[in-house]
This record gives sequence, C-alpha cells and structure tokens, in this order.
Amino acid sequence: MSKEITSREEDYAQWYNDLVIKGGLAENAAVRGCMVIKPYGFGLWENMRDQLDRMFKETGHVNAYFPLFIPKSFLSKEAAHVEGFAKECAVVTHYRLKNDPNGKGVVVDPEAKLEEELIIRPTSETIIWNTYKDWIQSYRDLPLLINQWANVVRWEMRTRLFLRTAEFLWQEGHTAHATRDEAIEEARKMLDVYADFVENFMALPVIKGVKTPSERFAGAEDTYCIEALMQDGKALQAGTSHFLGQNFAKAFDVKFLTRENKQEFVWATSWGVSTRLVGALVMAHSDDQGLILPPKIAPLQVVIVPIFKGDEQRGFIENAVLPIIKGLKELGITVKFDDSDNARPGWKFAEYEMKGVPVRIAIGQRDIENNVVEVARRDTKEKISVSMNGLPYYIKTLLDEIQQHMYNKALAYRDAHITSVDTWADFEEVLDNKGGFISAHWDGSAETEEAIKEKTKATIRCIPLQSIEEKGVCILTGKPSSQRVLFARAY
Amino acid sequence: MSKEITSREEDYAQWYNDLVIKGGLAENAAVRGCMVIKPYGFGLWENMRDQLDRMFKETGHVNAYFPLFIPKSFLSKEAAHVEGFAKECAVVTHYRLKNDPNGKGVVVDPEAKLEEELIIRPTSETIIWNTYKDWIQSYRDLPLLINQWANVVRWEMRTRLFLRTAEFLWQEGHTAHATRDEAIEEARKMLDVYADFVENFMALPVIKGVKTPSERFAGAEDTYCIEALMQDGKALQAGTSHFLGQNFAKAFDVKFLTRENKQEFVWATSWGVSTRLVGALVMAHSDDQGLILPPKIAPLQVVIVPIFKGDEQRGFIENAVLPIIKGLKELGITVKFDDSDNARPGWKFAEYEMKGVPVRIAIGQRDIENNVVEVARRDTKEKISVSMNGLPYYIKTLLDEIQQHMYNKALAYRDAHITSVDTWADFEEVLDNKGGFISAHWDGSAETEEAIKEKTKATIRCIPLQSIEEKGVCILTGKPSSQRVLFARAY
Repeated sequence: MSKEITSREEDYAQWYNDLVIKGGLAENAAVRGCMVIKPYGFGLWENMRDQLDRMFKETGHVNAYFPLFIPKSFLSKEAAHVEGFAKECAVVTHYRLKNDPNGKGVVVDPEAKLEEELIIRPTSETIIWNTYKDWIQSYRDLPLLINQWANVVRWEMRTRLFLRTAEFLWQEGHTAHATRDEAIEEARKMLDVYADFVENFMALPVIKGVKTPSERFAGAEDTYCIEALMQDGKALQAGTSHFLGQNFAKAFDVKFLTRENKQEFVWATSWGVSTRLVGALVMAHSDDQGLILPPKIAPLQVVIVPIFKGDEQRGFIENAVLPIIKGLKELGITVKFDDSDNARPGWKFAEYEMKGVPVRIAIGQRDIENNVVEVARRDTKEKISVSMNGLPYYIKTLLDEIQQHMYNKALAYRDAHITSVDTWADFEEVLDNKGGFISAHWDGSAETEEAIKEKTKATIRCIPLQSIEEKGVCILTGKPSSQRVLFARAY
Repeated sequence: MSKEITSREEDYAQWYNDLVIKGGLAENAAVRGCMVIKPYGFGLWENMRDQLDRMFKETGHVNAYFPLFIPKSFLSKEAAHVEGFAKECAVVTHYRLKNDPNGKGVVVDPEAKLEEELIIRPTSETIIWNTYKDWIQSYRDLPLLINQWANVVRWEMRTRLFLRTAEFLWQEGHTAHATRDEAIEEARKMLDVYADFVENFMALPVIKGVKTPSERFAGAEDTYCIEALMQDGKALQAGTSHFLGQNFAKAFDVKFLTRENKQEFVWATSWGVSTRLVGALVMAHSDDQGLILPPKIAPLQVVIVPIFKGDEQRGFIENAVLPIIKGLKELGITVKFDDSDNARPGWKFAEYEMKGVPVRIAIGQRDIENNVVEVARRDTKEKISVSMNGLPYYIKTLLDEIQQHMYNKALAYRDAHITSVDTWADFEEVLDNKGGFISAHWDGSAETEEAIKEKTKATIRCIPLQSIEEKGVCILTGKPSSQRVLFARAY
C-alpha cells in the first residue's frame, strides 16, 4: 500500500481528512482556517463548476462579477441579514503598510485608516441589491437573472477541509422579478437544477425540502434546500435556494414601474452551492482504500498501467496501448498512460485507487498476445479480462454503469436510513444507534425545535416538498402536528 | 442614436469611459476603486479566460487555488518583493463585528483583533512558495506547472475601469523548475502564449521584449512583456512573464534533491494577464460609434434585426429567419434574433453598434421575397446585400475576414507608429506630436532612464527580443549604446 488511511470504523472524521489529504484534493493553508485546493481537487471542482455553469446558462442566467468588499454600513440595511451574517467576518480597516521604523519588515500604516471599514463578502446580497437599484427601472428590465462565481469569507472558528473553511469558492445566483410567484418559481427551479446536478453528476440522491423559520437564510422568506446523507448517518445540506420576498428590494429601495404604470418593490431570489459539495462527494462514496469518484466529474476517468520488465516490453506494450488511448479520447474519455518506472504496478494500483479513478486498465506482454486487458472498476473492485477489440466502447459503457451503480448504492443506503418514528424513545434510539434521517411529527414551534436540538444535537433538515399531509402528535411535546418533517444530525 | 459617446478627438479618456459604461461592460462600484463587471463585459472576459485556460492546459499547466489572505510577515521574506508590493494593500486586522452599543448598526469588535494582520493578495508568489516548500522534495516533483484564476487587490489611488482598479481578476502562473535554463524557457514560452492569444484572438499586435531593471517585477531577475499600442499613441503592457531565478526559493527555503543527490534551490517563474486586457481591447479597436469586438471573443457574433410592421410581417420574417439561426448555430456562431417591439430598427442598429457586435443582419419582408438579407460589418460599416442561400457559410467566412481585417488595421497603425529617432530634439518632437513607440539608443543606466521619464513621462517599454545589435549613442547623454530600446508614454 502506498499510504495508510484510517478506516471509517476506527475514526470517521480522520478517515475523511486522510482521503482529502492523501487523495491530493486539498490541504490546510498557512493561513488559519483557509485551504489550498490542489490541482487534483481543483480539477474535480472545475468539472463540477463547468457543468453547473452550463445548467445555469441553459436556464437563462448570465454571469457577472461584483466587488469582494462590502461597506460595513450595507450589512446593517436588512435587519435579519445583519443578525445572520455581520458577525464573523474578515474586516479591512487599513489600506497601506510601511517599513517598520524598527527595521523589522513592515507594519500597518496608522495614517492609512479607512473612513468606513470594508467587510470581505460573506455573501453578496447587499452589494448586489445596492447595484440593482440602478439597473432596474421598469418591468422591461425584469427578470434579471445573474450568477457570480466567487470566493467568500466567513470567519469560522472550527474548520474542516471543504466542509467548513474561512474562505471558500462558490456561486451565488441573484435574481430579480416582477412578481412574487415568478420569484418563487425561480427559487424552486434552481433547487431542481441543484438536485439534478447532485443526483446525476455527483451520483448522490437528495431530498428536496424547505427549511423551518429558524433554519432560514438571514433575510429570506423561504429557504429551499437539498439534503444528502453521508456514510456515517449524518446529513449534509448540499445546496440552498432562497425566496427573499421584497426584503432586499425594500432595504435598498429597488422599485420598478409595472405595466400598469405603478411603482412596486422588486421580488428576489438567491441560491448557492460551494466547494462544500466536494466534501459531500468524498464522504458519500469513498471507502477505506480511498476516494471513489463518479465518472461524470472525475478529473481522470481511466488510467492504463503497463506491466513490463525492461524497455523492450515497455515499447511493445506502448505500441499496443496507443490505439486504445486514441479510441478513448475520441469518445471524450480522459485517460492517462502511466508508464513511469519509478514505482511498481502494485504501488500504482493503490495510488489510483486512493485517487478514486473510476477505471483501471492493466496490460502486460502476455495480455497483448492473448488480445486482452485486465479492467478493474474502482467502485466494486471487480476485475475482469476484456478483449482489446472494441475496448473503448466497452469502457464507455462501463463508465455509465459505474455512474449508475454509485447512485443506486447511495440511494439504497439513503432509503434504508429514513426511519419513521412516533415516540420520543424511538427517536433517541434511532438517532443514536442507526442514524440517518428520522421522519417524525413536530408541533411546528421554534421552542420545540430548539429543545430537540439541545437534547440530541439533531436538527430539522427540512420539511420535504413531497411530504403528505398526515395528522399526528409531536414526538417531544405531544401537541398536534399536520405533517412529518425530517430530523438528522448534520454537518 | 441611442446614446451619445464623446469622440476620441474631443476627449480620449472620456471616450474610453463612455464605451465601457454605455457598451454595458462595467461600471464603478459603491466601493471606492472597485468595479462591477456587467454581464456583457463578463461574457467577453469569459471568452478570453476560457481560451487562455485552454492554451495553458495545452502547454501542460494545471489549475489550483491558494488563499486570498497572506500573513503580513510573508511579504517581508523576499527583500525586493516587499519594496514593490507591500505598500498599497488592503489589510485585514479584525475578524468580527458586533452590534453598536449605541444601537446604530454594527461596529468592529475590538476584542477580535488578529494577532498577525492579513493582507489581501496583491499577487501570490509568497503564499504559493510557502506552500511549494512542502510539495517539492526531489527532481521527480519538478517541473511544477500551476496556474490560478483569482481576484487580487492593489490599493490604487487613481483608478480607471478595467485599466487600473483596486480589485481585479487575473490569472497567475507559478512554476518551479530544476534548472535555470528550463525556468527561462518556461517564462519565454508563456510570453509566446500571451502574444499568440493577444494577436490571434484579440486581433492586437504586440511587441515582445524584456523590461529594464527599473521596470522589473519586484523579486524577478528578468521580466518579459508584451506591449501593445492604443489609438491615442500610448503603449499598454498587455502581459508579463517573470523569470524569478532562485529568489523566492531562497526566501522560502525551497530546495530539491537533484539526480546527483545534491540539495539545490528551485528555479521559478510567474506570469499573469488580467481584466486589464479588456481595457486594451476596447481602446485598440473601437470608434466613435462604440465598441468593435473581434469575432473570436465577442460575446455575441451576429445579431439579426427584423424590419417589420405588425404581427403578420413579424411572423413571416421569423419563419424565414429560423433556418438561418439554426445554420449559424450549427457552425458554432453565437446569434441573437432581436424581434422585440419596444425599439425601432434604427435604435437597435445603434445599440448593437455600440456593443460592437461584429455582424448585423437586417431582414424585411421584401428582402425575403427577393431571397436576400442586408449584412453590415461593424468594423468597416460596409453594408452588402447577400443571398439567403448558404448565408451561414458566408457569415462564417465574413467573421474570419473581420478578425483578420481588425488585426491588419491595428498592425498597420502600430507599424506606422514605431519611429526611429537619433536626437533628443526628434525624440521630444515625435513623442509630443506623433506618439507611438520610439526606437532610440539609451546608455543603459537607470539614471538616464529616470531622467527621460521625468522630462517627458516616456518610459522604456521594453528591449525588444528581436532587436539587432547596433552601435549608437544615447539620445539624452550621448554615451555609447549597443542597441535601440522602445520608449513610449504608457497606460
């Protein structure tokens, strides 16, 4: 084995950290709470980003770029927003350094103090709605469908690579609409786009729902979300889409002239997913040998490892492999031929398993004489001898199969971990021993929600969009309830 | 006319600003010195970025992401670098806000002061080389060919949209090599990539050269550059590629084990282009009617404007246009059919001229009966009646022709504005009346360079890579010189 990974059984958190570090995805930076996204991890993010970007454009959105800095006073303009966001922020107070009079490096120049402090954006509603004020005059300017890819900063005290870092990369959509219904439709549509992406590209099933008032985005009237389940039975919020009502339009005085010649406030949405999705991907699919990446977004889909002794065999194998590489590339498959001689095949096998490359092809001189190669799937670890005739098509089909199999496996796990309970005793029992989502009745009050959270650390992940009305009584208080909600401990 | 633009003749700086604002590329943000890149401007940048990204990947580079924040002490580690970069920076001193005790919004929490201030990256050599220390142990880890797309901040006092803003978007390549020669080769290769991009995609001829020591990047042993000429006769540095020697390796103690089993410092390069290129593009090609964008990077290549009265004509035209749109899209051409009825055709014509859309197709009912359309080129403003048969192919060829014509025009202008002079009187005369690049002898001293800059505001843009050895005397001091250098006033 090339590198040791802590097993999930032994220490799930350490297993996750080992995968991220040893799989070459990211590492902690010299700056507290920040990470360096390494080339392999960034390649993965690029594939995710590019696919999402295509989906945003297909649904009529365009990209733009707004400033990194937000004047401090902007944060205070929307009352709920400042409560939720203004606290743990990076604050720029000065704009110049000078040579240390004592001769040791540089110091902040006290003369260069900003009149108003600038906040590094934790999210951009305020600066964007301040801008939209000038862009929107009439119903003809609506809808405004804009997305931004950007870095944001939230000064988290306890950070974990990808899952929670002070600086992270994300996209934030900010749209403006003439009517309430149209804005709600947009927020729901983007939730569907996220669900489509996470399920069909990340091979990770999600539950669509709406947050309770306590879990809403600061400044939203409704927060829609997709929730996924990790292998340790904890939930992870994979994306959110907010219906913001007219809150930001009122805070920044953004009105438009209707067709009926009246001045009205604009309706808004915002929606975002971040590099956190990379963490979800790692935790949902991987095993104790390393990462398992879905073919549709894997930076490298196929690796070919030659088994050779000496240069003559190497040359012989290379000749046989070149047409296979060509064939794979023609089918749009990314492939690497690793004929480096500084590591044995066994070491390479372990290394590419660690990195989660979906398909490995091993090929030696005798294989070529028999017109076969050995194909190994990363997800099931099955190995099979496959004819070299039509190999690229075989691989293409196999990649689709792996993608589907990964989804099915995650779905089966997820579905086996949604438990309906009707008593408090069962609730605690399932939470502590089985984990996963618990579907239970709740009386609808924030106090009960908070009490359950304090007792168990479980939160209401969402009120599922597809839930059915069902009369029952709250598991904690016994008060009446009209539908079940999903509880879980969560990342 | 839809919007008034100041003419170049009247006020070149205002003309530029009008184009950027009224062309919908960008606007000043609420934050001093920062800009909002609007969707049309961002679409242009995306096309430039994506093409550059392809070229970087084709030359073996991969993307990664490093933190926005740089610990203050890092900047002091490379002596020349701190002099050049540490001064006008955004400084983060606190990480929390709190409710104002006086009840008015939020204030910086004095308790949440950082132990060491963080600088918003003005460029990332320091944080990246601090990271490379852990990534590089042996010659097997080299070369390391990494690029980053990021936002950076330099606290400029006088800002202009795209050309000089406090925050801007760019890419920065940071590579590590085993030998001096290999690093120099890399720096030169990336200069060639930049020149290829600017000439063949932005249709803008450049001169490749090397900077004088006074104009070098802070921390570099050599700075290679490409210099372009704007329509007002001023030069603009369009990209730089630095050979950093072992300066950053020494500052951050990055050594590697050679094949001969010796510990040696690593050799480095860095290279970057930024959203400043958008400014160069605007200034180099546009005219008094608006932007003129090269087809290869224009966000929209073709606009079709129907000339109609009433819904019946509109429907008739739409039917005729649909196959044209389909044909254009099949050839990979971006096209918009603007049949909105809230503006007259003349207004639309002016609007798309303003936005620099390379080709406009106008089509009315009688045109269709005659099986023709009117095709207007944005660059020459020629209008021609073209048969609808095979129109998409005609347009494709026309777009190529426009691209080439724009380059040829810029090249002719540039070549007509390189003037060889041999006396100080001629130097001043050409500089003040003709502008452009002046090819003249210089004695090679920083004092003379500085004196010329003080007298005339002209700087040495570069020592051209293709210059020929030629004995002469310095235009200012009369001292001996071995080759001509290029002077110009510059952005």
